[in-house]
Amino acid sequence: MSRYDHIKEAAYEANIQLPKLGLVLFTFGNVSAADRAEGVFAIKPSGLPYEDLSPEKMVIVDFDGYAVEGSLRPSSDTKTHAVLYKHWEDIGGIAHTHSTYATAWAQSQRDIPIFGTTHADHNTVDIPCAPPMDDKMIEGDYEYETGFQIMNCFKEKGLDYREVEMILVGNHAPFTWGKSAEKAVYNSAVLETVAQMALLTEKVNPSAPRLKDALIKKHFERKHGPNSYYGQ
Amino acid sequence: MSRYDHIKEAAYEANIQLPKLGLVLFTFGNVSAADRAEGVFAIKPSGLPYEDLSPEKMVIVDFDGYAVEGSLRPSSDTKTHAVLYKHWEDIGGIAHTHSTYATAWAQSQRDIPIFGTTHADHNTVDIPCAPPMDDKMIEGDYEYETGFQIMNCFKEKGLDYREVEMILVGNHAPFTWGKSAEKAVYNSAVLETVAQMALLTEKVNPSAPRLKDALIKKHFERKHGPNSYYGQ
Amino acid sequence: MSRYDHIKEAAYEANIQLPKLGLVLFTFGNVSAADRAEGVFAIKPSGLPYEDLSPEKMVIVDFDGYAVEGSLRPSSDTKTHAVLYKHWEDIGGIAHTHSTYATAWAQSQRDIPIFGTTHADHNTVDIPCAPPMDDKMIEGDYEYETGFQIMNCFKEKGLDYREVEMILVGNHAPFTWGKSAEKAVYNSAVLETVAQMALLTEKVNPSAPRLKDALIKKHFERKHGPNSYYGQ
Amino acid sequence: MSRYDHIKEAAYEANIQLPKLGLVLFTFGNVSAADRAEGVFAIKPSGLPYEDLSPEKMVIVDFDGYAVEGSLRPSSDTKTHAVLYKHWEDIGGIAHTHSTYATAWAQSQRDIPIFGTTHADHNTVDIPCAPPMDDKMIEGDYEYETGFQIMNCFKEKGLDYREVEMILVGNHAPFTWGKSAEKAVYNSAVLETVAQMALLTEKVNPSAPRLKDALIKKHFERKHGPNSYYGQ
Repeated sequence: MSRYDHIKEAAYEANIQLPKLGLVLFTFGNVSAADRAEGVFAIKPSGLPYEDLSPEKMVIVDFDGYAVEGSLRPSSDTKTHAVLYKHWEDIGGIAHTHSTYATAWAQSQRDIPIFGTTHADHNTVDIPCAPPMDDKMIEGDYEYETGFQIMNCFKEKGLDYREVEMILVGNHAPFTWGKSAEKAVYNSAVLETVAQMALLTEKVNPSAPRLKDALIKKHFERKHGPNSYYGQ
Repeated sequence: MSRYDHIKEAAYEANIQLPKLGLVLFTFGNVSAADRAEGVFAIKPSGLPYEDLSPEKMVIVDFDGYAVEGSLRPSSDTKTHAVLYKHWEDIGGIAHTHSTYATAWAQSQRDIPIFGTTHADHNTVDIPCAPPMDDKMIEGDYEYETGFQIMNCFKEKGLDYREVEMILVGNHAPFTWGKSAEKAVYNSAVLETVAQMALLTEKVNPSAPRLKDALIKKHFERKHGPNSYYGQ
Repeated sequence: MSRYDHIKEAAYEANIQLPKLGLVLFTFGNVSAADRAEGVFAIKPSGLPYEDLSPEKMVIVDFDGYAVEGSLRPSSDTKTHAVLYKHWEDIGGIAHTHSTYATAWAQSQRDIPIFGTTHADHNTVDIPCAPPMDDKMIEGDYEYETGFQIMNCFKEKGLDYREVEMILVGNHAPFTWGKSAEKAVYNSAVLETVAQMALLTEKVNPSAPRLKDALIKKHFERKHGPNSYYGQ
Repeated sequence: MSRYDHIKEAAYEANIQLPKLGLVLFTFGNVSAADRAEGVFAIKPSGLPYEDLSPEKMVIVDFDGYAVEGSLRPSSDTKTHAVLYKHWEDIGGIAHTHSTYATAWAQSQRDIPIFGTTHADHNTVDIPCAPPMDDKMIEGDYEYETGFQIMNCFKEKGLDYREVEMILVGNHAPFTWGKSAEKAVYNSAVLETVAQMALLTEKVNPSAPRLKDALIKKHFERKHGPNSYYGQ
């Protein structure tokens, strides 16, 4: 028994969703779940196949990236998670995958245009693609700097991480987050689908227009905010 | 026991086909089944995962969109279903999905050209794409107006909903219908396949010609009308 | 018990491979198995879902297309099968699907270029696409004429049905055949894969060259002919 | 019992991963596992379906391509394996597939550009595509020459087979290798994913830039070399 059992369980459950949702090959992804009161998060151990995971194997790390509990080495992307938890105080879970279509957009260094209501049900803006870091950041504390690269992109574009819960890191792959680890994984799956639909939309019609503002507003407000009427 | 058990059962069975046929991610779709004599339909509750559904959880709604029976909130698209049942008197089931390829065409705001016999086995015309609504309709009673947008598109193009059982709503996604909820879901799957084939056809040959009239007529009449000879 | 049990069994086994290999949606395909000594073939009944099939439900038809045994109506494509069995005396099985990529090429009215060894392991030529029939043939005995359209295409291109066991019927879909129903289905799956690879090849390199003659010859002879050394 | 049981078991386990990973249709692939001390390798028998394999059916062959043990004929690609084992002394396993996207790049005769970190996690260079052989090599001892064609391509491009564990053979398909048969199959799956992502990247952005050097170096060194920190 550990005081961190609830986030180990949450991180475990969220991690094993990744292969079920078709979002990862082998070990190419990781999810974490935070306990804000304790100032820590549980994250997947590095390089372990999803079928070998169990809640006890999750590693507990604090928001500065230091391991607190667990005998395995945490995900190599741990410091990116730590930076985001430290600075974005309302998120409870983070997911990182190399899902095929979202990664193709990241490699293309393009924001994903908002083409339809599937996108607008979750975001009111194009899904941002952060530019690749400059060489000094890469050669320095790379995963730590990746967190800042993500936050800087949001700052420059004037985005709020509470409203837009996903980003592409240029030449790399997507990161998503949310109130919980489960929601972060949900967002990874939504992003992959939106990325595929956007690519196909441009194939069908290279001059497809962005979604009009009234539809963006309508669909987002159906699901979010004080007058939402989606769900129970 | 309820006098609506038969349509609850039909709506339930049809809804759980959506994930089996690969037509939905998470809760992105809904199917309803009508009882014309009672003037009501059974529809999926809003936001519930398909694996949590049961016949009893289906919500009974009348053709003006008012809930008649059931403790859960009906699908957020309920009013679109209600409008179509009210005005198109021969349909017994409606399905709405965000299936990948059909949604890509909807986002592209293009009709799907009739390129082959797979299409002609089910429709004699290009699959229509209704234009996005004007802003007033969107800001008003959105789902209600979506029903009228669909009907207006059929009126303007001179189509009969008894012959063409599917439409794309521009920037949004497909709606399909039919004599029963089961048939509506069948049409959603056919539409997704036809949408994928049409996209690939244009990739292989950007100047691929539409199917010639004699083949359209032949294939449609093999399956439909007095001289059909497909099936038992 | 029936004297046709062996071909009913063979046709049944071959038909249920179609959904397992991902080659059909709903009932969009059919396979037959011939008994040359009896001058008949067993074929899928029309419109029946694959999961409802059993060997006893297969319909026995002669090479003129007349039903010989069975209580169900045979596939609507039965006459095409009959014509091919009647005129191509060395084939023992025929398969027809609307598999996605092969159908996209058929709708594009293009032969599939021989781009690699996966193709050459099975064919030494581009996979032919027969042109759509003229209107008189379509309005006449359509499925019967489809068989002649296939044979005419082979005649005009100087192909031998014993060497090339597959064709695309323009605007329609593929037909494949072979020594047995099992081989015909095998060829349908190979064709679908070759069709997908060829489409992707042109996307990666629009000026990709056809496979050179020496490689075509080598790969085909590895699997076929007196000096083949593939398999046991 | 045989002194080769351990490599038969390793080859068997690796071969049956191919269909599970979606890398093969029917029998279109083969994996081998070497015992360096004995100077032999175990390889899949030719043309046998994966579901019919067992460890005992693996064929033992020496590095000159001669069968040493086993009653079945070895894979038709056996000599290519033998040549690579003979000359590349640090490899313990080889895999050959016709996986869809990697084969499309091979048919396109293009190297796969390094577009992102998924690629850089495994290779620091574009994945090489060897040109098709000249006609004399093809007409001669084809599979034997294929091994030399692979080695020549590495020599000409100045690549080290210990660092780059995969290649496309032009117009044909991929070969991958590694310390073990298991690693060779892992590389086949990575290659297929990287090939798909690269194709999609060019579709999203035809002028997508190659990954910058600092990121290539960083990601490769996270997983490989003395300062790696990925995995346990």
